[in-house]
Amino acid sequence: MSKLPNITTSIFSVMSQLANQHRAINLSQGFPNFPEDQRLLQISERIIRENIHQYTPMAGLPSLLEKIANQTLNQYGRKVNIATEILITAGATQGVFTAINTFVNQGDEVLILDPSYDSYEPSVLVAGGKPVRVTLNDDYTSNFNRIESAISTKTKMIVINNPHNPTGRIWTESDFEALETILEKHPQILILGDEVYEYITFTQPHISFNTRSKLVERTIIASSFGKSLHVTGWKVGYLIAPEHLMYEMKKVHQFLVFSVNSFSQHAISEYLDLIDFSEVSKMYQRKRDLFQNLIKDSRFELMPCDGTYFQVVNYTQISNKNDVDFAKELIVNHGVASIPISVFYNDATDRHMLRFCFAKTDETLMAAAEKLNRI
Amino acid sequence: MSKLPNITTSIFSVMSQLANQHRAINLSQGFPNFPEDQRLLQISERIIRENIHQYTPMAGLPSLLEKIANQTLNQYGRKVNIATEILITAGATQGVFTAINTFVNQGDEVLILDPSYDSYEPSVLVAGGKPVRVTLNDDYTSNFNRIESAISTKTKMIVINNPHNPTGRIWTESDFEALETILEKHPQILILGDEVYEYITFTQPHISFNTRSKLVERTIIASSFGKSLHVTGWKVGYLIAPEHLMYEMKKVHQFLVFSVNSFSQHAISEYLDLIDFSEVSKMYQRKRDLFQNLIKDSRFELMPCDGTYFQVVNYTQISNKNDVDFAKELIVNHGVASIPISVFYNDATDRHMLRFCFAKTDETLMAAAEKLNRI
Ligand SMILES: CSCCC(=O)C(=O)O
Ligand SMILES: CSCCC(=O)C(=O)O
Repeated sequence: MSKLPNITTSIFSVMSQLANQHRAINLSQGFPNFPEDQRLLQISERIIRENIHQYTPMAGLPSLLEKIANQTLNQYGRKVNIATEILITAGATQGVFTAINTFVNQGDEVLILDPSYDSYEPSVLVAGGKPVRVTLNDDYTSNFNRIESAISTKTKMIVINNPHNPTGRIWTESDFEALETILEKHPQILILGDEVYEYITFTQPHISFNTRSKLVERTIIASSFGKSLHVTGWKVGYLIAPEHLMYEMKKVHQFLVFSVNSFSQHAISEYLDLIDFSEVSKMYQRKRDLFQNLIKDSRFELMPCDGTYFQVVNYTQISNKNDVDFAKELIVNHGVASIPISVFYNDATDRHMLRFCFAKTDETLMAAAEKLNRI
Repeated sequence: MSKLPNITTSIFSVMSQLANQHRAINLSQGFPNFPEDQRLLQISERIIRENIHQYTPMAGLPSLLEKIANQTLNQYGRKVNIATEILITAGATQGVFTAINTFVNQGDEVLILDPSYDSYEPSVLVAGGKPVRVTLNDDYTSNFNRIESAISTKTKMIVINNPHNPTGRIWTESDFEALETILEKHPQILILGDEVYEYITFTQPHISFNTRSKLVERTIIASSFGKSLHVTGWKVGYLIAPEHLMYEMKKVHQFLVFSVNSFSQHAISEYLDLIDFSEVSKMYQRKRDLFQNLIKDSRFELMPCDGTYFQVVNYTQISNKNDVDFAKELIVNHGVASIPISVFYNDATDRHMLRFCFAKTDETLMAAAEKLNRI
């Protein structure tokens, strides 16, 4: 009877709660703990008295749509159409759910890389679809032989999260070429590109699916102001897609949520005039480097981190426990909360890996590192 | 291929756009045009500088859940459980969509009264279910013979909107008794009670499904702070349901949107200490009476309005046009925007009825009435 029989309490809630209980340093759930930009709060404070508290138009505040469209000229090399190709969503999670539930019908298959962010599979199950998991390589790069083998006549969509949560890997030119070669043979397959960490890349500039001319006509991009502007609680994101796909998603969106928090849309719209997204990668690269340097002599082994604000580490030198148990021990005995990577696998694959969120103040990162170095 | 092949642009968008174009007085889409309560904006202005901009817990801000639970003691005569029976949603529309998409499976039937609010049927279609329309009586009261006849072994849910948009009718004690008698024989049928206008009733106090001991174990209530606090753009609502139903809805909510705008939840939570919901009905009753008095000598015939902020009128004395065409004519030639009632029917039944929203300043209502009186 349940559409999601295997879902229990979110690991993010479990770990955050345990962290609070033991007053641990919380590097588990992905959200910044540094202060928001005062300029954003100043704008907010000023506009709260303005006449902005009733429904915005269904697809989003026109001025915000315009700012996003202008951005896309930089991002994609072409300006997307304001009226037909953008939709403001209540966070990227709602965007992802809407995309999946618009196009996935009973029995349709959706390819999901393993490990992957935890919302894709349930979104497919609610739509009555069948998630098909394709395991990443051991170094968390994508395995295109496995992707190709997993495709069937029922495959409707592939979900690609790039930069990738939880692993911190990003796609290179050759990854895109490999996927393009495969998808040429399967014109029915849609791409859902979860690019919420698009402004957080370190090893190379982000490559969006929307810059790939062979793919763009079947690509839906989900993006997130919560991540890019450090206000995860605001729940404002957006979808970008060609008109023939967006037309259908807008219909579902209209009846799923109708519109998105008006105040936040107004504030973000003004704030976008003041900021330079290239600063976001720089800021997080500094934090990544700081955190990596602080724990490089510990017994945790650092995995590559090309993007996102997550650092994966291997703890094989420390413990034989499975990662869920070890993550709990790390909270209870050592005062640091993380997320065990096995929770992002369909079958709970344990490779002794933990994910630390480094979207934290330098003080928090230093305090956490001190504890990790003692283990 | 489309899950919603018959959906085109929302009538609310069409009419509001036409109204803007012709600078008509907009009594179409349901939202207040009077200033928000300054106390709510004061709270907002103060708390914007606080540390409230990251994810709230998935089910909602704990202090807001507590205020809602306290309210329910007044509303339902019992305090619902904070941890297991309440979920904050991104507006009641998301609540309704979540309830339907949690419980309705491929082929399940859902009873929807006709006319009805426009989101129910598409929400059922996205879930793969089958909407079964049951026409209201000519005076817009519910017809329980028709409801009983429409039930089949596949019926999974009945959606009851009370107070009712667009007709402004409310359910009386005898309506509840009639439904209870029917549903006794069909224990598998869930009730989705859309009670977003619960604080806007004129002819008798609102009776919630959650006060009906025979029904409460299978009832899901959707409610809306946007409507009750006059901030439709904030998109904060909530669901109330017994734990066995809420448990499943929380799972879907977690992956559909995860959490709701944090700032708005904080502001509403503080504001709820200051207000008395009984004032809402009084305020709108005064507006209903004003509007009714202003146009009672016009050629529009007033239908009963027991609740909501909508007044339905019949224009048979004025025109033979169908209601969509007449509503457009009313904008273009007479400068007043309304919603034609036929759009709320599955088969576009035209009975020469229009819906006017009276959640407007007295000045707006007087200016509109002046135009309507001239026709
Ligand atoms: C929506 S809560 C989870 C936040 C996040 O993106 C993560 O920690 O992976
Ligand atoms: C969500 S837009 C429609 C607002 C409303 O409830 C109505 O006008 O009926």
